[in-house]
Amino acid sequence: MELFDPLFRSSACAAHFGPAATLQGMLDFEAALAHAQAAAGVIPQAAVAPIEQACRSDCFDAARIAGDAARAGNLAIPLVKQLTARVRQADPEAARYVHWGATSQDAIDTGMMLQLKAAFGQIDGQLAALRQVLAEQAERHRDTVMVGRTWLQHALPITFGLKLAGTLDAVLRLRAQLHGLMPEVLCLQFGGAAGTLASLGERGPDVAGRLAERLGLTLPDLPWHGQRDRIARAGAFLGTLAGTLGKLARDVSLLAQTDVGEVAEAAGEGRGGSSTMPHKRNPVGCAVILAAAARAPQLAATLLAAMPQEHERGLGGWHAEWETLPELALLAAGALDTSIELVRGLEVHEARMRQNLGATQGLIMAEAVTMALGASMGRLQAHGLVEQKCRLALQQGRDLQDVLAEDQQVLAVLGPQRLAELMAPQNYLGAAGVFVDRVLQRARADQD
Amino acid sequence: MELFDPLFRSSACAAHFGPAATLQGMLDFEAALAHAQAAAGVIPQAAVAPIEQACRSDCFDAARIAGDAARAGNLAIPLVKQLTARVRQADPEAARYVHWGATSQDAIDTGMMLQLKAAFGQIDGQLAALRQVLAEQAERHRDTVMVGRTWLQHALPITFGLKLAGTLDAVLRLRAQLHGLMPEVLCLQFGGAAGTLASLGERGPDVAGRLAERLGLTLPDLPWHGQRDRIARAGAFLGTLAGTLGKLARDVSLLAQTDVGEVAEAAGEGRGGSSTMPHKRNPVGCAVILAAAARAPQLAATLLAAMPQEHERGLGGWHAEWETLPELALLAAGALDTSIELVRGLEVHEARMRQNLGATQGLIMAEAVTMALGASMGRLQAHGLVEQKCRLALQQGRDLQDVLAEDQQVLAVLGPQRLAELMAPQNYLGAAGVFVDRVLQRARADQD
Amino acid sequence: MELFDPLFRSSACAAHFGPAATLQGMLDFEAALAHAQAAAGVIPQAAVAPIEQACRSDCFDAARIAGDAARAGNLAIPLVKQLTARVRQADPEAARYVHWGATSQDAIDTGMMLQLKAAFGQIDGQLAALRQVLAEQAERHRDTVMVGRTWLQHALPITFGLKLAGTLDAVLRLRAQLHGLMPEVLCLQFGGAAGTLASLGERGPDVAGRLAERLGLTLPDLPWHGQRDRIARAGAFLGTLAGTLGKLARDVSLLAQTDVGEVAEAAGEGRGGSSTMPHKRNPVGCAVILAAAARAPQLAATLLAAMPQEHERGLGGWHAEWETLPELALLAAGALDTSIELVRGLEVHEARMRQNLGATQGLIMAEAVTMALGASMGRLQAHGLVEQKCRLALQQGRDLQDVLAEDQQVLAVLGPQRLAELMAPQNYLGAAGVFVDRVLQRARADQD
Amino acid sequence: MELFDPLFRSSACAAHFGPAATLQGMLDFEAALAHAQAAAGVIPQAAVAPIEQACRSDCFDAARIAGDAARAGNLAIPLVKQLTARVRQADPEAARYVHWGATSQDAIDTGMMLQLKAAFGQIDGQLAALRQVLAEQAERHRDTVMVGRTWLQHALPITFGLKLAGTLDAVLRLRAQLHGLMPEVLCLQFGGAAGTLASLGERGPDVAGRLAERLGLTLPDLPWHGQRDRIARAGAFLGTLAGTLGKLARDVSLLAQTDVGEVAEAAGEGRGGSSTMPHKRNPVGCAVILAAAARAPQLAATLLAAMPQEHERGLGGWHAEWETLPELALLAAGALDTSIELVRGLEVHEARMRQNLGATQGLIMAEAVTMALGASMGRLQAHGLVEQKCRLALQQGRDLQDVLAEDQQVLAVLGPQRLAELMAPQNYLGAAGVFVDRVLQRARADQD
Repeated sequence: MELFDPLFRSSACAAHFGPAATLQGMLDFEAALAHAQAAAGVIPQAAVAPIEQACRSDCFDAARIAGDAARAGNLAIPLVKQLTARVRQADPEAARYVHWGATSQDAIDTGMMLQLKAAFGQIDGQLAALRQVLAEQAERHRDTVMVGRTWLQHALPITFGLKLAGTLDAVLRLRAQLHGLMPEVLCLQFGGAAGTLASLGERGPDVAGRLAERLGLTLPDLPWHGQRDRIARAGAFLGTLAGTLGKLARDVSLLAQTDVGEVAEAAGEGRGGSSTMPHKRNPVGCAVILAAAARAPQLAATLLAAMPQEHERGLGGWHAEWETLPELALLAAGALDTSIELVRGLEVHEARMRQNLGATQGLIMAEAVTMALGASMGRLQAHGLVEQKCRLALQQGRDLQDVLAEDQQVLAVLGPQRLAELMAPQNYLGAAGVFVDRVLQRARADQD
Repeated sequence: MELFDPLFRSSACAAHFGPAATLQGMLDFEAALAHAQAAAGVIPQAAVAPIEQACRSDCFDAARIAGDAARAGNLAIPLVKQLTARVRQADPEAARYVHWGATSQDAIDTGMMLQLKAAFGQIDGQLAALRQVLAEQAERHRDTVMVGRTWLQHALPITFGLKLAGTLDAVLRLRAQLHGLMPEVLCLQFGGAAGTLASLGERGPDVAGRLAERLGLTLPDLPWHGQRDRIARAGAFLGTLAGTLGKLARDVSLLAQTDVGEVAEAAGEGRGGSSTMPHKRNPVGCAVILAAAARAPQLAATLLAAMPQEHERGLGGWHAEWETLPELALLAAGALDTSIELVRGLEVHEARMRQNLGATQGLIMAEAVTMALGASMGRLQAHGLVEQKCRLALQQGRDLQDVLAEDQQVLAVLGPQRLAELMAPQNYLGAAGVFVDRVLQRARADQD
Repeated sequence: MELFDPLFRSSACAAHFGPAATLQGMLDFEAALAHAQAAAGVIPQAAVAPIEQACRSDCFDAARIAGDAARAGNLAIPLVKQLTARVRQADPEAARYVHWGATSQDAIDTGMMLQLKAAFGQIDGQLAALRQVLAEQAERHRDTVMVGRTWLQHALPITFGLKLAGTLDAVLRLRAQLHGLMPEVLCLQFGGAAGTLASLGERGPDVAGRLAERLGLTLPDLPWHGQRDRIARAGAFLGTLAGTLGKLARDVSLLAQTDVGEVAEAAGEGRGGSSTMPHKRNPVGCAVILAAAARAPQLAATLLAAMPQEHERGLGGWHAEWETLPELALLAAGALDTSIELVRGLEVHEARMRQNLGATQGLIMAEAVTMALGASMGRLQAHGLVEQKCRLALQQGRDLQDVLAEDQQVLAVLGPQRLAELMAPQNYLGAAGVFVDRVLQRARADQD
Repeated sequence: MELFDPLFRSSACAAHFGPAATLQGMLDFEAALAHAQAAAGVIPQAAVAPIEQACRSDCFDAARIAGDAARAGNLAIPLVKQLTARVRQADPEAARYVHWGATSQDAIDTGMMLQLKAAFGQIDGQLAALRQVLAEQAERHRDTVMVGRTWLQHALPITFGLKLAGTLDAVLRLRAQLHGLMPEVLCLQFGGAAGTLASLGERGPDVAGRLAERLGLTLPDLPWHGQRDRIARAGAFLGTLAGTLGKLARDVSLLAQTDVGEVAEAAGEGRGGSSTMPHKRNPVGCAVILAAAARAPQLAATLLAAMPQEHERGLGGWHAEWETLPELALLAAGALDTSIELVRGLEVHEARMRQNLGATQGLIMAEAVTMALGASMGRLQAHGLVEQKCRLALQQGRDLQDVLAEDQQVLAVLGPQRLAELMAPQNYLGAAGVFVDRVLQRARADQD
């Protein structure tokens, strides 16, 4: 167990990328290969059962495979060697047909695709769970008025529901993207030594078709040993996912500042305490998510940078993928787990939100007044007038409403009651509710 | 004119991202906004024409806008100021309604989307052109036998058509991905100061709908000032494109090595000459493409890393996008231009390909013999036997066929004629032709 | 002029990387080469003056060089062609000796080193200027008490001087690092076609020595056409610089939040205004610096990733450097300019700092009390007690001091007056002043 | 044991970053803190021994610490809790003084610095070992003539010694850089909760001084909780190291191509065999090194990108460092191990090098002739003449020497014997020997 795994990674997702799963992915390829070859008449049917029965990762010496891989250059070579020895013990005849017609990269890439399929299934479920908690919170806070902030400055009133709907909208997009991406990315690798399946003569395509079907992977038009765009695309998706979660965590951490106090991560035994400051509650979840969002872009870039691989099998670029893609998936899935927990348990301090709306003594309502005035005096002129009143209010430490109420021009256009209405944040939310409702509707229609 | 633009960038694409295009993108937003607002009854119809007529980038002082932006923090503020002044000269009343209800980011993001739409259209056409020249070359070389290389070592025979089909397959995938991505990514930004369209009261959504339609952009369910996954996704696509082209250039540059000599970039006046070595023909096109493939991953990473933007408008992250996305598009489009030219003009030296097939004195046919022997004596045993013969052939500097022909076990199984057939590269291409044909068929079905 | 240059780049630094400077860098190499060769007796002395006189970038057709470079693969080939033609007009004999014994990469790399030397000189001066304004502000605010924040939560009192001293300390480190790096990085490239200076026979090293001396560059032990660690190291320095400035901007932007209000960027005509919100003052300087800090790491990574260049001259990796290193220098220098202006003009709101110290009603003084209690009752027990009092104070919305004063155990240990002293932020600053003084002393000793 | 560790990582270096080492780093801080505090009179001397005796990582429940860290947000909080409990069992009074005055980040950062110090010591030794084997090979091959290649094209003759000296030169530079960097980077972190050491009153600096001395780390002028340039600089160094090794591996892998055959990685049981192609010897070492060189730049970029950390302790950026810096060190050290083995065991095929020198039928000697002719007829004219002869030789498939010997102008200037001398590769090596000797001399002077 690595020290940082519980903090940064999804344990559910980790199961898909641990040593056993990595070996099993390749072994599933080898077992399915025996089935497909037998069905296509390439190898005897009698060879299938002994091979399949030997393809259980828990019977292999992972440490020895790892050590041998340092010399062989990949995991498949020592794995196939051990597998063949194991099959031979049970059935020497069957041992002849282990890994028949395949190359190491066939087993390694297909194994990775099987692992990725499991991880993407997991992530899909997590995205649905995040959608759920976000939709609940967005609905609950559809009309919770708070300050909208641009450039880290108070701008205009918004609702907390709108803020959450923005992330929910992105989560729905991510899920749709994942669904579109899975059949295109998750595909069989099977090309033999140089991508021609030459050792299978004319029966290569038939075997490949059966193999893909058996493994539940897409059958590509040709092997892709040196064409790595699918891997890069998977990485880019995971990077975008981490970025979207990072945006959520950025906002939550900023709202959770002592100076803002509008939200807090859920409290809990041993959660976010400080070793020296008893009063603090550190936004640990946000830190975890932001760390993933800081690391994911570069991991995605590694996969992009590794794409120009040499000829029919690359040297270095391919090897750079082996740990990078799992690491990226684990960090993204970890951030997803943490995000679900974060949103579900989020404490929302509505009173503080209301209080902060007044922090600028009405200045954030300046646009409301500007627009109302602008309708009769023109946008620029109104802008200039209100800007001047804002400066005055700031200088004198007074409420903007009071300052505006002293101006005859303003009163002439608006009147005191209309002015008061204009200065109430809840009256200046525009289409916030419509926007939230649209996204909630899509969220409800989204299938698990 | 920058010194490196002709070398690295697509001039056609550059037109979409130059200063004039950047200003025009924002001005197109402003003009369409006036139309949409008038149609929705928000501003007087009479204001539209004066605004629209002023929205021509060639009438603006770009240098002054650039200078003022250094203080204002973005281009839209000084642009709108100049625009308003220009409209005022023509029609003071109309000037009141310039930029009505919009925020700077609405103009900037929508302008960027319009530029990106033009660039994506351009890239789509380039991808179709690359498809065309790749398909032609792949068809021409469907049966051109050459050495397949893995780990930079001779492996087995393949065809040059298969190699090209691998890139063609990826190009078809990229094009499909682009078509799927365009309606999802290319969308309107219109949210006003904090994303609520508050200044438009209840008419915000109506205006937004008209605006999106007029500009030919997708209408999103809500503004996305702080949700940047679309930008990151566009960047990831461009990064994947650059990576695929980099793979092509990597292979061409390796095949063009003096030591390999199987292909060469087209010759031409002043192309790839050396200042000191008159005999050299440098693969300049490959260098250009590989440079793009080296730079694009990090630019895509910048867009991913910039995603966690603060609240309703970010600080720094948003600004990091402004030059990065155009730069990425320009480099990818430049590499695409160069790739089309590269593939179209590629000199293919078939004689050298045939000659190189014999460079290992038959060793690359070892698998063919191994598989044939393995059918009767088992894969591992055959592997061991042939491995031993290969070592012998290497040590004695003899042809593998001759060494094998001396072995009684081999002769007993295969006989001399079968052995000779097995040693002929053109007889050991497996499904290469099938694979090429599949991809060519998809290429033919792909619409321009 | 590019639209974003005034916002993001240093105009002083831009002068070192514009088209004219790039051409001039190579021309300075060519002129110095003629001098060195003549001095070493390789070419006639009479050839020097005509060559030198022609080496003025303003006499060259930059657009044509750029266009020709797209075919030639680099700028030096067309430049040398034009240069030779120009010299020939003046002195056909001298034209024979233009670029004698050199290769394109000699001119390009050395030219880049000359540009980098100028840029580093400029950046060194900017670092000294930043040191100056930071030292002034740190001294001014040596005792300005404010809230220290960890995990974005109020932690303990610090001084604003201490915060500034942290950046000042890093700036002093950066400057020392730059001084150490310059002689190691800024060196001559001169190896001829394959790095042997073969065309100069035995006189190569002599010429190289004279050339380095004339150009004020370090003479390396051998050419480095394919060894790019110096370039990568320059990039890493610039990346670290951008990161340090990003840290400064991050803190300033957070302190400038409406919700915190402890600092503000200097106001000014057209500075950071919003197009729709008249009351806002956007931290434009921070955005510019943070954008640079977001882009620089990836540009530095591109230079690292480009290092494994092929053999005696790379293909793609070298080309990837050409725009990346200048871009990185320009963005870092731009952020440096903006940082100097930012620190110099920073408005510091001491009253708000004092007010914010009380925002947690004494909770940030919890550690002070804990430590005082811990001395007699043990750290953990004291921690537990104070943690409980903090919770009570939070629940009841009361001052921690009042809550503590009710506890007999606390009073027994501390007494009311000691408790009051402990609760005063200015009494709990530890070594803050010592730390500031140390850094200021180093700053004063730092030479311009 | 992770499956890819033996392939990609240095086991010696891994010992410095495993779970036990990570805990021990923090425990060493805690033990030294007790010593320093007691020496400074802050805590009783009697507390030191019980604390020190408990500071052994093998007595801690790492899995529980890891699990608790997921809630606490870092490893130090649960570690200190366990430590305190352990001390309390032995000596309840001493338990009061565990972690006295320190914050989690003090333990974590200082622990990391201790780990980094051990890793840097290890890497320093590896660099010395690499220097040694490179110097031996460079000396052995000082005069081994081979083709120099630029743009992957044959250019001019060089020596294999020169190629190796280029890497040796870079290795010497890296080692000098490491020596300069270690005292600047490897420093104590000790600031308490907000960097003021407030809980130690006036004795903070005294304790810090003693602590740094005891731990063998540099004492910084002030704490650096939020200033991360040292971490980024360590990362940049490791990235540059990986890049230099990547350059070595790039060249070796290209020279080891079947089509070139000038070098090969050492053979060995189970080394680089192919599962299907018995004749292949894959350059596994190169793949490992190139994979590290592909991953390191992005990991270094993550550390640069994480620099702008918030206020007195960051949120996410700091956390992103925890695994990234160790991972970078492990991959770089792994690549270093592999490089030492690669260079030590490298098979050099001098006969093939000689043979390849003739592959262009004398074209690579074109410059030699050009320079000789240029001395009398001018560089450009000679260039033109030889370029024409080269084309003729290429078209007719003849040796350049024969073609040149037919030209009266050439013969008039050179004569047949001089021409023959000019065409001999070993006569056109320029300063290659001088360059190698210079670097060897520096290598001999370099201390272990």
